Amino acid sequence: MPEGTKIAATAEQLAGLKYNSDGLITAIAQDVENGDVLMLAWMNEESLKMTLTEGRMVYWSRSRQELWRKGDTSGDRQFVKEALYDCDADALLFKVEQEGAGACHTGARTCFFNSFG
Amino acid sequence: MPEGTKIAATAEQLAGLKYNSDGLITAIAQDVENGDVLMLAWMNEESLKMTLTEGRMVYWSRSRQELWRKGDTSGDRQFVKEALYDCDADALLFKVEQEGAGACHTGARTCFFNSFG
Repeated sequence: MPEGTKIAATAEQLAGLKYNSDGLITAIAQDVENGDVLMLAWMNEESLKMTLTEGRMVYWSRSRQELWRKGDTSGDRQFVKEALYDCDADALLFKVEQEGAGACHTGARTCFFNSFG
Repeated sequence: MPEGTKIAATAEQLAGLKYNSDGLITAIAQDVENGDVLMLAWMNEESLKMTLTEGRMVYWSRSRQELWRKGDTSGDRQFVKEALYDCDADALLFKVEQEGAGACHTGARTCFFNSFG
């Protein structure tokens, strides 16, 4: 079974993050094995702390307005291997091990399967 | 000199995109060569059309509230190689050729150079 990496972010790192007016921050999940960008979703402070503590991706679902522990329903969990944030601390990037069929609710490996043109 | 790919998105694809209440949509730039996620920024409809038409990344700067043709000042332009959107059409992913030192205003190759923990 895949395992996530529990990450001990410092209080300073967590306090420095910039959430939007809804208390949310963007989170990119990237396949640690092949570099594919799997999805972009949102986290609030609580879901970020759960993600780092559990080593599993937990998002905030804007449509359902609830915590979304990715894969609890679908089985397609995401195990954290590395957690990063950007230069202005308003975007997160997680390198993950994707379990099951893929990240997308359509069954696709990545949510970014549509090409323009 | 690097060159971007001009992409002829269909009217249907463009009309199907979901912008937020500020008229913006998230855009991820990924290095087409090594898969590194370079940055996450925002586009409005105009900057997306310019990006696709010119084959060069043009963002909307939320801090300056203006079009931001990436690299016009720094020289670190981003040339589009592939343009994708996600399953619910509210996030964009561009595979780009990054010119110059890198994507980040700090001089780093990628904006995601900070690790938690």
